Amino acid sequence: MSYKDRSDLRYFFEPASVAVFGSLREVFGLGYGMVRNLLQFGYSGKIYPVSPYHSEVMGRKAYSSVEEIADPIDAAIVITPPPTVPPIVEQCACKGVKAVTIISENFAEAGGEGVKYQQQLVEIVRRTGIRIIGPNTVGLFNAANSFLTNPYIIVHKKIRKGGITYCSQTGYVGMAAQTWGDRVIPVSKVCDLGNKCDVDEADLLNYLADDPQTKVVSMHIEDVRDGPRFMEAARRVVKRKPLLLFKPGRSQEGARAAASHAGSLAGDEQVYDTAIKQVGAIRLHNWQEYWDMPRIFAYQPLPQGNRIAILTLAGGVGVAAVDTAITSGLSIARFSPATADKLKKIYPRLSNNPVDLGPILSVSDNPFALQEDVIAAVLNDANVDCAAISVYVGFEDLIAIIVEMFEHLKPRIAKTLALWIYGMQLPVLDEMYRQLEERGLPTFLDLESAVKALGIAARYSRTKSSGE
Amino acid sequence: MSYKDRSDLRYFFEPASVAVFGSLREVFGLGYGMVRNLLQFGYSGKIYPVSPYHSEVMGRKAYSSVEEIADPIDAAIVITPPPTVPPIVEQCACKGVKAVTIISENFAEAGGEGVKYQQQLVEIVRRTGIRIIGPNTVGLFNAANSFLTNPYIIVHKKIRKGGITYCSQTGYVGMAAQTWGDRVIPVSKVCDLGNKCDVDEADLLNYLADDPQTKVVSMHIEDVRDGPRFMEAARRVVKRKPLLLFKPGRSQEGARAAASHAGSLAGDEQVYDTAIKQVGAIRLHNWQEYWDMPRIFAYQPLPQGNRIAILTLAGGVGVAAVDTAITSGLSIARFSPATADKLKKIYPRLSNNPVDLGPILSVSDNPFALQEDVIAAVLNDANVDCAAISVYVGFEDLIAIIVEMFEHLKPRIAKTLALWIYGMQLPVLDEMYRQLEERGLPTFLDLESAVKALGIAARYSRTKSSGE
Repeated sequence: MSYKDRSDLRYFFEPASVAVFGSLREVFGLGYGMVRNLLQFGYSGKIYPVSPYHSEVMGRKAYSSVEEIADPIDAAIVITPPPTVPPIVEQCACKGVKAVTIISENFAEAGGEGVKYQQQLVEIVRRTGIRIIGPNTVGLFNAANSFLTNPYIIVHKKIRKGGITYCSQTGYVGMAAQTWGDRVIPVSKVCDLGNKCDVDEADLLNYLADDPQTKVVSMHIEDVRDGPRFMEAARRVVKRKPLLLFKPGRSQEGARAAASHAGSLAGDEQVYDTAIKQVGAIRLHNWQEYWDMPRIFAYQPLPQGNRIAILTLAGGVGVAAVDTAITSGLSIARFSPATADKLKKIYPRLSNNPVDLGPILSVSDNPFALQEDVIAAVLNDANVDCAAISVYVGFEDLIAIIVEMFEHLKPRIAKTLALWIYGMQLPVLDEMYRQLEERGLPTFLDLESAVKALGIAARYSRTKSSGE
Repeated sequence: MSYKDRSDLRYFFEPASVAVFGSLREVFGLGYGMVRNLLQFGYSGKIYPVSPYHSEVMGRKAYSSVEEIADPIDAAIVITPPPTVPPIVEQCACKGVKAVTIISENFAEAGGEGVKYQQQLVEIVRRTGIRIIGPNTVGLFNAANSFLTNPYIIVHKKIRKGGITYCSQTGYVGMAAQTWGDRVIPVSKVCDLGNKCDVDEADLLNYLADDPQTKVVSMHIEDVRDGPRFMEAARRVVKRKPLLLFKPGRSQEGARAAASHAGSLAGDEQVYDTAIKQVGAIRLHNWQEYWDMPRIFAYQPLPQGNRIAILTLAGGVGVAAVDTAITSGLSIARFSPATADKLKKIYPRLSNNPVDLGPILSVSDNPFALQEDVIAAVLNDANVDCAAISVYVGFEDLIAIIVEMFEHLKPRIAKTLALWIYGMQLPVLDEMYRQLEERGLPTFLDLESAVKALGIAARYSRTKSSGE
């Protein structure tokens, strides 16, 4: 395998065994933190802590060097001072370790000596074939085997296994920086590429294209190392699953900031825009979209077209949603005469899209039965491909009623849904959010985001069918 | 006072006494709901329930008609069927009631008979001088006296008195549809104008321009009844306080939806854009901005210029923030040599803006002391007008430490701040949010929104100083 072709990153994400290099000082040592996190998350592989200063950590034997370990080792995680890192990687290569994730900072991004150490790493990679993610990264997480490289304190309820892989070039995207547990984010993998001294975004995309657990890729990039290779890899992904790209640095000032952070030229904005379009990826515009938009692909079917129905409980809200639909490339569905009749029977003023349920809900004795009938009627119209549905969760008692409504609806509809929930109390909204997401209903805290997500789903659906 | 000039809406928001017209049936009656809410919120004025079917509600005497009440009555709230509303308003006018808020639906917006009833209301207004908000509204709230007209179940912790007045033309903006208590929203007044059969957006703006409790107006409009009058009123507001306008219906389809909802033509998009700019108001682009942006004016000083400092804990996040700053009309501050020196002494790579604190925080024993010094150094630079500051709240113990840091900072800085908080647990974030907001620090859940808010503050500051 030549240096450029190797893109099987299996050993990074799916190691059967891992050596951990870093201070094993109790509680505050970052190597200690990594071992603690691996155990706490329930990583099922073997863990080999390595440190010349400790013989034991959390009841496990620590090794003074990697040579001392008799068993084969797939991966290593390193968080030691820069001058010590190249020798450690060299020893790992000798030992036959396949994949090293280097968390340590102060390499190329810091200038000076750091540049030299990073160059030494590149040289070891070329010479030995070992592979490196980083340095200067919070590294990886894989929900499938609970493997993670993060050394910091992490407190989550159970993390939910799902189809979204988040890739980035910043430590902001890590297990410590997001409400993974509380928001039941359906995550497959997380990867911060850091300084990209070896593994780059093209390698990662090639791996993710083939990864059966990844259903959608949300990727933040600051720069691209090899344009044509990146585009080829992106095309491979898009053929199989949606690729959402967030590339900040649109403004000249932003591009300058990116250059100073990533230590590389960010390239021409127009070139990126064209390239992203050409490969059929979808460009995102901010971090909120980066986190929120992929959920639409996590559990919902792809829409067969771009005709949206918008259901609100207050007319004024629908107008803004229509604006968002149009700018997101959706068209406002026109209901068939049969659907319009059904709706008019429920309430005379219900035949238009957006459907404003407000007037009936405030006078009905059983508003949820009505809401259910309206949703079913609208979504069974052949002129409707997807729907953004407003759900009012005023107080706790409504949670169970709303869950029941969607349970009833599930067998009655097979189109793409995105929900907007709102109400008066954060704990109630959070619990409603959790219960809907757990049932495969992408839930948003503003209607515009729900509509935008449907627009993105329809766009990928178009790309996919035009490529087939 | 002529019909067109009267814009003192005092009696709507500050009545010393109110008559409530609506079903007093226990729990489910909407008149009952209004009385219950007035009592529960602690409205300090006198409440007179009126119903021919009940003699008592919640231990208070109910009156069979408004004539029966001996005392003078400032305001009335009406939620009875449309045909009964004009006679009620007529009786109120005879009794000398000044202001009637009509919650009932099915007037002009419903077509048919509803149009006729609304016309009758307009006729009564012209003839008697009584004033009407609505019909088809959730009405009003005034934090100063805890007066509200909402008939639905409302569950909030204590609502916080503050400077923001939210105006709209949809029931979405009401006390039942937002996390007022949990998010400690600093609210002055809320007003849904509904069908605007009498009081319109110009009346409301004129009243709010003079209202000492209102520091900033966030207004949603679907249409404007009288362009020149609206612009004049908007100008009056802008001279004294910021006016943020959210006018959806930008797309043709959105404009059509607005027309069908509000029953009036939405007008040309370009005309609105020009008019909003001419009066010095700031146009918002979605509901999230409508709710979030005004907080920047609630407790912070206006920035004296548009030069922003951006502080992050991860370099990748700063790049997107720079993009947002530029599109929001801000410029990226260049630190003075003295500040750059100070920062370099703290850490060699800290002299640039955005300031990326990530590298030092992960190696420092006292990261918050460092962060405090950096924030103080940056904000005391004469080249910096405002700052967006990232705050990582990984777990509960950090809340008190972060509060203490900002308490230390308070006497050391006098510039405009907006914070972004992030972390792993929703309850921790919510508590941090609450504690920071209570201390007058506008807090956002994404960095882009924090930057955008500063951009809006700088724009208003420019408008204000150019008008002086």
